Amino acid sequence: MKENGRLQAAALPEVAHLKVHGRTNGSLAPLTLFWTGSALEFNIRGSEVWIEAEADYDQHEPWISIVINGSPVSRQMVTAGRHWICVFRGMNEQAVKNVKIMKELQAMSDDPGCLLQIHGVKYDGEFLPVADKPLKLEFIGDSITSGEGVIGAQSEEDWIPMWFSAAVNYTAMTARELDADYRVISQSGWGVLTSWDNNPGKNIPLYYGQVCGLLGGERNEALGALQDNDFKAWEPDAVVVNLGTNDGGAFYSPDWNDPVSGRSRKQRLNEDGSFNEEDLQAFEAAAEAFLVMLRSCNPQAYLVWAYGMLGVPMLPAISRAVDSYIRKSGDTRVSVFQLPNMTPESAGARSHPGISAHEQAARALSGYLKELLHA
Amino acid sequence: MKENGRLQAAALPEVAHLKVHGRTNGSLAPLTLFWTGSALEFNIRGSEVWIEAEADYDQHEPWISIVINGSPVSRQMVTAGRHWICVFRGMNEQAVKNVKIMKELQAMSDDPGCLLQIHGVKYDGEFLPVADKPLKLEFIGDSITSGEGVIGAQSEEDWIPMWFSAAVNYTAMTARELDADYRVISQSGWGVLTSWDNNPGKNIPLYYGQVCGLLGGERNEALGALQDNDFKAWEPDAVVVNLGTNDGGAFYSPDWNDPVSGRSRKQRLNEDGSFNEEDLQAFEAAAEAFLVMLRSCNPQAYLVWAYGMLGVPMLPAISRAVDSYIRKSGDTRVSVFQLPNMTPESAGARSHPGISAHEQAARALSGYLKELLHA
Amino acid sequence: MKENGRLQAAALPEVAHLKVHGRTNGSLAPLTLFWTGSALEFNIRGSEVWIEAEADYDQHEPWISIVINGSPVSRQMVTAGRHWICVFRGMNEQAVKNVKIMKELQAMSDDPGCLLQIHGVKYDGEFLPVADKPLKLEFIGDSITSGEGVIGAQSEEDWIPMWFSAAVNYTAMTARELDADYRVISQSGWGVLTSWDNNPGKNIPLYYGQVCGLLGGERNEALGALQDNDFKAWEPDAVVVNLGTNDGGAFYSPDWNDPVSGRSRKQRLNEDGSFNEEDLQAFEAAAEAFLVMLRSCNPQAYLVWAYGMLGVPMLPAISRAVDSYIRKSGDTRVSVFQLPNMTPESAGARSHPGISAHEQAARALSGYLKELLHA
Amino acid sequence: MKENGRLQAAALPEVAHLKVHGRTNGSLAPLTLFWTGSALEFNIRGSEVWIEAEADYDQHEPWISIVINGSPVSRQMVTAGRHWICVFRGMNEQAVKNVKIMKELQAMSDDPGCLLQIHGVKYDGEFLPVADKPLKLEFIGDSITSGEGVIGAQSEEDWIPMWFSAAVNYTAMTARELDADYRVISQSGWGVLTSWDNNPGKNIPLYYGQVCGLLGGERNEALGALQDNDFKAWEPDAVVVNLGTNDGGAFYSPDWNDPVSGRSRKQRLNEDGSFNEEDLQAFEAAAEAFLVMLRSCNPQAYLVWAYGMLGVPMLPAISRAVDSYIRKSGDTRVSVFQLPNMTPESAGARSHPGISAHEQAARALSGYLKELLHA
Repeated sequence: MKENGRLQAAALPEVAHLKVHGRTNGSLAPLTLFWTGSALEFNIRGSEVWIEAEADYDQHEPWISIVINGSPVSRQMVTAGRHWICVFRGMNEQAVKNVKIMKELQAMSDDPGCLLQIHGVKYDGEFLPVADKPLKLEFIGDSITSGEGVIGAQSEEDWIPMWFSAAVNYTAMTARELDADYRVISQSGWGVLTSWDNNPGKNIPLYYGQVCGLLGGERNEALGALQDNDFKAWEPDAVVVNLGTNDGGAFYSPDWNDPVSGRSRKQRLNEDGSFNEEDLQAFEAAAEAFLVMLRSCNPQAYLVWAYGMLGVPMLPAISRAVDSYIRKSGDTRVSVFQLPNMTPESAGARSHPGISAHEQAARALSGYLKELLHA
Repeated sequence: MKENGRLQAAALPEVAHLKVHGRTNGSLAPLTLFWTGSALEFNIRGSEVWIEAEADYDQHEPWISIVINGSPVSRQMVTAGRHWICVFRGMNEQAVKNVKIMKELQAMSDDPGCLLQIHGVKYDGEFLPVADKPLKLEFIGDSITSGEGVIGAQSEEDWIPMWFSAAVNYTAMTARELDADYRVISQSGWGVLTSWDNNPGKNIPLYYGQVCGLLGGERNEALGALQDNDFKAWEPDAVVVNLGTNDGGAFYSPDWNDPVSGRSRKQRLNEDGSFNEEDLQAFEAAAEAFLVMLRSCNPQAYLVWAYGMLGVPMLPAISRAVDSYIRKSGDTRVSVFQLPNMTPESAGARSHPGISAHEQAARALSGYLKELLHA
Repeated sequence: MKENGRLQAAALPEVAHLKVHGRTNGSLAPLTLFWTGSALEFNIRGSEVWIEAEADYDQHEPWISIVINGSPVSRQMVTAGRHWICVFRGMNEQAVKNVKIMKELQAMSDDPGCLLQIHGVKYDGEFLPVADKPLKLEFIGDSITSGEGVIGAQSEEDWIPMWFSAAVNYTAMTARELDADYRVISQSGWGVLTSWDNNPGKNIPLYYGQVCGLLGGERNEALGALQDNDFKAWEPDAVVVNLGTNDGGAFYSPDWNDPVSGRSRKQRLNEDGSFNEEDLQAFEAAAEAFLVMLRSCNPQAYLVWAYGMLGVPMLPAISRAVDSYIRKSGDTRVSVFQLPNMTPESAGARSHPGISAHEQAARALSGYLKELLHA
Repeated sequence: MKENGRLQAAALPEVAHLKVHGRTNGSLAPLTLFWTGSALEFNIRGSEVWIEAEADYDQHEPWISIVINGSPVSRQMVTAGRHWICVFRGMNEQAVKNVKIMKELQAMSDDPGCLLQIHGVKYDGEFLPVADKPLKLEFIGDSITSGEGVIGAQSEEDWIPMWFSAAVNYTAMTARELDADYRVISQSGWGVLTSWDNNPGKNIPLYYGQVCGLLGGERNEALGALQDNDFKAWEPDAVVVNLGTNDGGAFYSPDWNDPVSGRSRKQRLNEDGSFNEEDLQAFEAAAEAFLVMLRSCNPQAYLVWAYGMLGVPMLPAISRAVDSYIRKSGDTRVSVFQLPNMTPESAGARSHPGISAHEQAARALSGYLKELLHA
């Protein structure tokens, strides 16, 4: 093999014009990618680029996608340890390439050992500035928003990172359609009030204010995951909330037993199969409170509760919550948008939406956002 | 990171039930993958699998796709050297997974240093037999059949491995639709008589009889690339020939000058822009001769000349050649099938067919083959 | 031309096994078709059938579609007077054909002279029973549900019957997908509280209880249009309400001036462009009251408020109304379903949804109804 | 009903700016529409238009479509006798409408009594000139080109006019896509050499030179159907020949017995199921001779043999014929184009291509013609 003699290695802090996507602790030494869809982006005029990535985990390994000039070209697991990964080679050294190294796997709240970092690059040529997109979007959600099931056969059942994708799901598709930079805050199985299995500690609002507070362990704490997020630093034009699916599921799941207090809790069904009013109220109160929080964190953004890719049982409660919020706040930049339901044909792995279901959702949602944002 | 203590390493020859796709030298120590679409397939009941791959090249690095239970889950460059690549981990150890490690890059006739081998596996659990599919297909072609341009932005122009895909092109799609095992013999820029730039040494028939004779260099020779292919060992039900696009291009390309003899040659255009009759005859003779060769190598197969994804200028000449062959041979198991033309919307990188163009071609071709094979 | 000597004429009352779709005065002497989608259906074993239709109008002529074995084969204007219209001829006299003569034009509240009746048939062969479909659906709506704009070029602007279709719109498509008999109650420009131009007399609830009470003139009264509808006689499994689009439009339209009282009324916008709270309340009260009415008329039906083909500004108000109704009534068989929005590509004539927009809506709605009805 | 007092009646010869589509005897007193797709076109600024149509037949009644501003709005049977048919009414009298009254039914060679004529118009306002389209296309074919089966349920089996459509088939779709005026010469069951049932008298070339020579009976003769067609008067840019499907079928059909000579003839199959060489030669000779004829009649046109919507068994023979013609004539403006095959999903009535099959064919064919014609 012929070595490229002109390659030079550099730690990220030594490199100009790098752009980071996703909430971050602000450090490039190294860059830690917490959330799915988080990415390192750069423009480079050169023939070859490598990145040095480091991964660790107790169970669940991170994956990355490499996106070149807007097109995903590679998707791979990053196993434990530090690895030099070649992004491209043998390209026209005069042409400028836009590169995104994107985290495919969501932040893993159950695996405090899970880590993905980028230490440095090896390259020839020069880095050039990356312009911001005209719009900024934030997506908040659960497994759907984490792209769970986008990859893999319909028959797959294991809950593993391999089936998750950020580069190919409705968040990336919607952002492309609107020509927007975007961030994703999502966690499989979580809701607004509880997780699918009634755990009240597993809800997004609890951690929304932090960089990535749902991550456990000392290392993540040391990395700043628990720090307050700097909302001033990145102000989205719209925040899309795709939550409620797991809150709905909780009504059909067994009690959750608090290992500490020993107490158990559950969203109850009435004998006729309808939702227990009191428990539904609790969900609505949580949803309304989350809107208050989202507004205080994002003073300028349109808030869009987008829901429905796996059925619409919680739509009335979501509508009531949004409504009650608007009434009390007088804040009219909030709305509910129903997403198209997955069909047997558009299903992916693990009974989750597949690519075509995400494409459909992105078409509908981007159409709605374009009107809202006059984009 | 928690080690999986049960992992055991084994060289391929020590592993039972491995299935190899694509022409091969017969050795598993190591397994050399020559052609695009060549693959190592196995069924395993276990939780984790790695493969040890080795790559080398002067310029063009090989790429692989990992296909699990029929679904592509990972696609990555394999850089020079030996690497342990994790195929999957953390899966249900009781479930059986079907795995294909597929070569994404065509055999590289211009890069004698280009090499992709698989030495061994690291795994827990046990390997199980892989049944043969009910049908066997062979695809013979050029850049289209090599999946050039399936990956990457429409704006891409560099001729590099990154834009090639075997797992996502009309050959894989057609084989899936027919539930067939398949092989691919293809080379970008090559034709039946000459290459796009009139080089008479760059045509598929010259090397069809060998395992992978278009590969140069001592290493490839030592690996058996020049050996005669054992046609008895794998008898396709249909051979699809997607050649002619570059033979057509040759008429519009400059002369090719033979560095040895100093002589130059070219497929000529008449002043009115039509093809020079004599040169066209040469193409037809080559096409007819290739059919004779294909039949002698594949006594049982239906021979289908499938052409048209990048226009149909050579269709009449191909039809004449097929026709003349049938007339002389009385062999009626040969036909011409026109593939749908690429549109601006369905174009991929490097002005080559993109995914949707390959999907369209696969729909049309598989429909035709199903009738032919009563599949 | 060869006469068919076996043809016999009969007034409808003399014919066995006729099935009437749509609200009716019960008379077959003649049969009056009031609403769009209303139809005369029969099964006949014979070679030729004619119907005698009578039409009248001051401005707007009725249109009909002829549907044979579920497929629309003819669509024509019916001009003033009595006409024998050939349904089919020269067919295999042994085969049984299912025939539907369907009114393409909505009931015309502004044209008291508008009339469509069927007096008799001319036929050979014999009439056979028509089985009821396993499900019954009722659609209530405005111009969208009247199929306005399904026919005609996008450039069309005249408000005329020619652009309306019942046989080709989401109501027929959804009913086919669910294998359901169905009825349509719809009026262009009308809403739940007022019409698009703030006229409080033009809302569906005012007339829902009558056979076709929005029709004026002595003839319609004599024909029983103002009679109470017999809800016991036809009990739908689901009632789909697609209203609100014009109530939303009213906020952006000029005042309506009552010619009688001289008083004017209007749904007002606040200075910031939001809806006036009091006026929005009035809409919600009207929507809620309509649900009470629908339930009292349709004790068994699922009530589905399906809205969104021309934007979703009223969705929150509709959700509140549905919600408030459920809360007060404890009736849980009521829900809101958002329909996919029209796009520039799916637009038809007069800036209304075209065929593809109706197909999209039918796909989404029928998917939802299938779950609801376990169909 | 309110009469439109401004309506005036006029015989066609009295009306300015009428445009006639399709081969004609040149008379407007009345206008006889022979072939499917033949039409009367006009632009009118007015509020209301009627036409007086006359129909007759022994068995098969003609049908018409009314196309307004390019959009089909009505489709109806025209029963025997003279009828005033309203085209539109109540439209904005200031707006100009483009109107096409199109014959939906092919010329009926088996029904000498079949007739469709237009005598006059009743209208208000004024007629305006109709510009010619930039391109002219001629389509020659069989039942596929006659749009047989485009209308009606898949289960339909009767051979009747109701299932035929000109306004909705690949000829109209292709012409629209290319913005072309067009003519259609087609006959169900006919071929280049014989009909599907081996009748040598039922082939298009026999009658191509006449206005509509395949029509029998004194009335048609008196109407000029047998006159030589004036090819100078309308010179197409491309002639699309979609023939061969029935010539192929003839090999699988019983002998045809000549009632006169008592002799029988048949395209024979060899014992191995292949086509008898001699009979195939006869087909090729006929196809080649037809090309000679087409060229002599259409000196400037591209000749495109477009075939394949119902399978491709005759493709090699067609290619040979085209080829042999080119070789002997040196005429290079002739080519073969394979049309996409019908699938079970895209089938219409009577096992013929349905609307989606025609749309697919039109997409492929118009793409090819655009390149050819640089349109």
